[in-house]
Amino acid sequence: MLLHLGSADRLLEARERLTALGLEHSLFPDRLTFEIRADLSIIRPAELEAKLKDLGPVEQVRSRTPLLDAIKPGHEVLVEIPGGEPIRFQNFSKNPVWIAGPCSLDDLNDIRSNAERLSALGVPVLRGGAVKPRTSPHEFQGIGRKGYKLLSDAAHGHKMAAISEALSEDDVEEAAEFLDIIQVGARNMQNYSLLKKLGKTGKPVLLKRGAGASLKEWASAAEYLLNEGNQRVILCERGVRGQERELRYTLDLAGAAFMQHRYGLPVVIDPSHATGTKQILEACTAGSLAMGFAGVMLETHPRPIEAKSDALQALPPEEFEAIARRHLKPRA
Amino acid sequence: MLLHLGSADRLLEARERLTALGLEHSLFPDRLTFEIRADLSIIRPAELEAKLKDLGPVEQVRSRTPLLDAIKPGHEVLVEIPGGEPIRFQNFSKNPVWIAGPCSLDDLNDIRSNAERLSALGVPVLRGGAVKPRTSPHEFQGIGRKGYKLLSDAAHGHKMAAISEALSEDDVEEAAEFLDIIQVGARNMQNYSLLKKLGKTGKPVLLKRGAGASLKEWASAAEYLLNEGNQRVILCERGVRGQERELRYTLDLAGAAFMQHRYGLPVVIDPSHATGTKQILEACTAGSLAMGFAGVMLETHPRPIEAKSDALQALPPEEFEAIARRHLKPRA
Amino acid sequence: MLLHLGSADRLLEARERLTALGLEHSLFPDRLTFEIRADLSIIRPAELEAKLKDLGPVEQVRSRTPLLDAIKPGHEVLVEIPGGEPIRFQNFSKNPVWIAGPCSLDDLNDIRSNAERLSALGVPVLRGGAVKPRTSPHEFQGIGRKGYKLLSDAAHGHKMAAISEALSEDDVEEAAEFLDIIQVGARNMQNYSLLKKLGKTGKPVLLKRGAGASLKEWASAAEYLLNEGNQRVILCERGVRGQERELRYTLDLAGAAFMQHRYGLPVVIDPSHATGTKQILEACTAGSLAMGFAGVMLETHPRPIEAKSDALQALPPEEFEAIARRHLKPRA
Amino acid sequence: MLLHLGSADRLLEARERLTALGLEHSLFPDRLTFEIRADLSIIRPAELEAKLKDLGPVEQVRSRTPLLDAIKPGHEVLVEIPGGEPIRFQNFSKNPVWIAGPCSLDDLNDIRSNAERLSALGVPVLRGGAVKPRTSPHEFQGIGRKGYKLLSDAAHGHKMAAISEALSEDDVEEAAEFLDIIQVGARNMQNYSLLKKLGKTGKPVLLKRGAGASLKEWASAAEYLLNEGNQRVILCERGVRGQERELRYTLDLAGAAFMQHRYGLPVVIDPSHATGTKQILEACTAGSLAMGFAGVMLETHPRPIEAKSDALQALPPEEFEAIARRHLKPRA
Repeated sequence: MLLHLGSADRLLEARERLTALGLEHSLFPDRLTFEIRADLSIIRPAELEAKLKDLGPVEQVRSRTPLLDAIKPGHEVLVEIPGGEPIRFQNFSKNPVWIAGPCSLDDLNDIRSNAERLSALGVPVLRGGAVKPRTSPHEFQGIGRKGYKLLSDAAHGHKMAAISEALSEDDVEEAAEFLDIIQVGARNMQNYSLLKKLGKTGKPVLLKRGAGASLKEWASAAEYLLNEGNQRVILCERGVRGQERELRYTLDLAGAAFMQHRYGLPVVIDPSHATGTKQILEACTAGSLAMGFAGVMLETHPRPIEAKSDALQALPPEEFEAIARRHLKPRA
Repeated sequence: MLLHLGSADRLLEARERLTALGLEHSLFPDRLTFEIRADLSIIRPAELEAKLKDLGPVEQVRSRTPLLDAIKPGHEVLVEIPGGEPIRFQNFSKNPVWIAGPCSLDDLNDIRSNAERLSALGVPVLRGGAVKPRTSPHEFQGIGRKGYKLLSDAAHGHKMAAISEALSEDDVEEAAEFLDIIQVGARNMQNYSLLKKLGKTGKPVLLKRGAGASLKEWASAAEYLLNEGNQRVILCERGVRGQERELRYTLDLAGAAFMQHRYGLPVVIDPSHATGTKQILEACTAGSLAMGFAGVMLETHPRPIEAKSDALQALPPEEFEAIARRHLKPRA
Repeated sequence: MLLHLGSADRLLEARERLTALGLEHSLFPDRLTFEIRADLSIIRPAELEAKLKDLGPVEQVRSRTPLLDAIKPGHEVLVEIPGGEPIRFQNFSKNPVWIAGPCSLDDLNDIRSNAERLSALGVPVLRGGAVKPRTSPHEFQGIGRKGYKLLSDAAHGHKMAAISEALSEDDVEEAAEFLDIIQVGARNMQNYSLLKKLGKTGKPVLLKRGAGASLKEWASAAEYLLNEGNQRVILCERGVRGQERELRYTLDLAGAAFMQHRYGLPVVIDPSHATGTKQILEACTAGSLAMGFAGVMLETHPRPIEAKSDALQALPPEEFEAIARRHLKPRA
Repeated sequence: MLLHLGSADRLLEARERLTALGLEHSLFPDRLTFEIRADLSIIRPAELEAKLKDLGPVEQVRSRTPLLDAIKPGHEVLVEIPGGEPIRFQNFSKNPVWIAGPCSLDDLNDIRSNAERLSALGVPVLRGGAVKPRTSPHEFQGIGRKGYKLLSDAAHGHKMAAISEALSEDDVEEAAEFLDIIQVGARNMQNYSLLKKLGKTGKPVLLKRGAGASLKEWASAAEYLLNEGNQRVILCERGVRGQERELRYTLDLAGAAFMQHRYGLPVVIDPSHATGTKQILEACTAGSLAMGFAGVMLETHPRPIEAKSDALQALPPEEFEAIARRHLKPRA
């Protein structure tokens, strides 16, 4: 982005204002033009232009995410549920959305009892994996797409929304029929064919960040969804590869805050998959809520030892309940 | 760590309890012995042994951090200040400690006016770099060790504690004479010679995590300080290298929570250096406080544009004040 | 993996032999059983068992990649081409396979002239992107699946094999019809639905490593292909995210060597995408060939400045020719 | 770096030439000025200016490593040894320098027999750790500075050079007295106080890259040595933290090639510490030699099982000998 000063008189003022905005900049040898590294900046290009235009004309470089740049701060993603109040995902909301449930759907009873218990605690969204992306083909691959209906029946019975992952392009149609929110897993964040099909459904999509993805790559993946005309995009941070060797991933809360401030899409935090360690889930949940994120996603299982995946990180009912009682503010 | 069951009757119960504790484990072919990956576990070995011993004898592997393992949860690091109440660094305290001030000491007036203003806001610890670790030898290297006295005079004049970095083994003596807390920078986290000298001083040491350090490496660096008989160790997370390309580092709040729970030493969060982006400092501060950390460290500068380092990340007084008013609970 | 010593007499010998094999191990308290961390070991489980069984029975843990573990060292992937000699991908071969061509197919003439020139230099495989995975939806997405036929016509006209990427499950049928090798891009390494469809075709598949993937995750992705009965799998290292900020990615040659030794599948190195810097391509090519990899993949373009992607990393014809003349050994 | 075109007539030519040089660039709105991202470029600023000046004046930005930028391609670091021919470290040399020996000095006999055997194979430099940087304070810390003399006596007895690490500023004087090359370990790469003291000795210094250091940070650390007037700097790549979870570190050969081409200082590769896996050491050695590095550093130990550190990665004599016979070209 280039700022062309109308007059050299305001050079010093321009430098001070750019610094105050926290922008990297360099002055061209004409001493009238600043190059501003707005590309990596936390400030939206349009907002920046508005703040600088009294100094002189601003010339924008072509953005790789023009649709995302046009999202307004406070953007709300509305999720309708049959016969219930819609659920609102919005950053800095008074009612951050809790999403909870088991990692994978094991059998019907579990998910029904999960729904009942979670609903009673005020959790508005029920999660459960039907088709599972497992690192090895020899691991449990989930109960399949029939799980979408089982999950949504269980959720809707308690006026909850249902969220589950679409793993394949072939999953999209059925997922869109039954689910209220469709999840894109971290491994598929850059599966552009899947993103395009999901964008076309118009359904709310929760887009998890890839474990090896930079913030801009994450933003560009969201742009694929927006590019199909779908603005109902929720971002979900679930940990990246960092320097940790003890926890499963590095939960990038500051990176998620960057996305929240820079792009305005609602951001949800999933500390269960990020850390794989249930002892710090309460701290991470409390931190996420204090940071103004649109929601949190936690893994619970009535009997973790019998869970078909992620036994060690799932919270048993009583531990989840204790956390929810201390931190969940139910909708009025 | 090995758990030797007294009887095969309790095999199933043992498996359930290990799972409930979130412990990776494997059963030996004798079907009486479990290997527990306690090394990477969030539970202290001693605590674990206490929880399991009714099942049978527990055999511990030699720890690389026995002194750190012996630190009690709730460990408090007391920092005395001349003529004032001591400052207490403790996780999950009601009064997390705020540390603030400029990245580097530029001139005396600045630090005095900083101290006055910060003290009035209820900030108990004044920071300021005297000797600076700069990536290039051609960058401003700080005003030198004379800054230790300038800083502590400014701090003590307002009953604040003074913290600054010791960069070289040659800095240690003077740092110990004037400072109330001595900081080890991220680049020196594994400078064992420096750690040994600092440990011998008995002074409170704030140990920053290296940008490329795993959690265990950080713990082992703390062990070097403890090994000299110094238990007054405060850990400080300031960001690691991750997948970010937009922020300066990845602030590892979940990793810091692991350290807080596993080792009990007080942990302080420094979001200024981690993110380099002042727009998200308030969110990171609020998150850190909600997670129960012992304190936060923020960079402020009366006129960021004139700061000799880190101009873009330093908060000007009015922005810092706004954050402090919203989040700082002054001591009674 | 557990080694049960028949007798305590051989305890010392066992320790020495395990150490000589470079294996992490720990002795159980019965002083007759060793746990061997073979999971992360460079030695195949079957080979290991053969080397240890004279010491006592060996008990293997369930592998997540049993099919990959059964691949023999020296495994060869044969690629047939219409009317020509088949091309053999094999580690430590005397004739490592060169793959070259433009990043994306721009127009027909280019690819025909590319094929002619590359063929004359002795390059046996022609690459060219038809459907392109681009970070932003607003960037050139490739000429589409019609490119598969254009590419293979150009290649087959010179008795070269054709390789291009299948991006979507919808691409698989047409890719299998026209291409000789189907590429899975780094972003799709864990797109398991795509892997399953590709496995079913029985066609040779070149599986690129994800930029955020560990070696085991890469191995597990290959297992998905093997699990469909397809053993014609070629691995391709193209750089991971590391500590670099100057090059595009960190080319993990040692990691690729681990895969080559541990799993036996042929490994090809792609330094063009890994480094994005043409000045070091010759050094990386020479290094890869000296390390015994099954092949190298390089990006060339007749007029880089007009290339629709990756202009800065593509080698112009004369530079590629110079490298090929110095390092390519054409088949007899 | 800015290129000011004398005339708009050469705009197209300028773009083509910048692209051909592989340089990221952007045209200013005056359509006469290009900004060139030379900072991250593989081309030295001075070389670049020479190549572009016929197009118009070139304006350089202030470099953070001006002394390093002034190093000439082909820079040679000469290491004198008492009574022997000096050893020459130079990239793309016909005689890359082999450095070998045990990780740590255990006792005198070992190092003497090591020296004898390695010298007979044509290895010109003997390594051995006297003071050891160990992650835990409870691990073997080395035999201490007396090891410097033991090592150099053993080396000089066979007209070899001696290299060992200086860990503390207190080690420098004795290290400079006895050693021919002083090593800075990865953990101390940004220990600027140590670098300054080492720079002042004028002795050859081998500067290992930190496991979390970017290439520019490595270059800046070298600048600290040059800034004390010492141009006898050898860089050593020993692995960075990447995506590996199976090998110890990610050996960044391409990053090392970047340093070799961009800065001209001799670069040595240490695959032993990088991989921790002796099965791939030969491949990594062969690759390093083929890439034109100034040397390789390998860990050997007569009886790895008795080594006090790194038992699993050290090559026993017969395995090292086999590698040396196949790849070491002794000096004429």
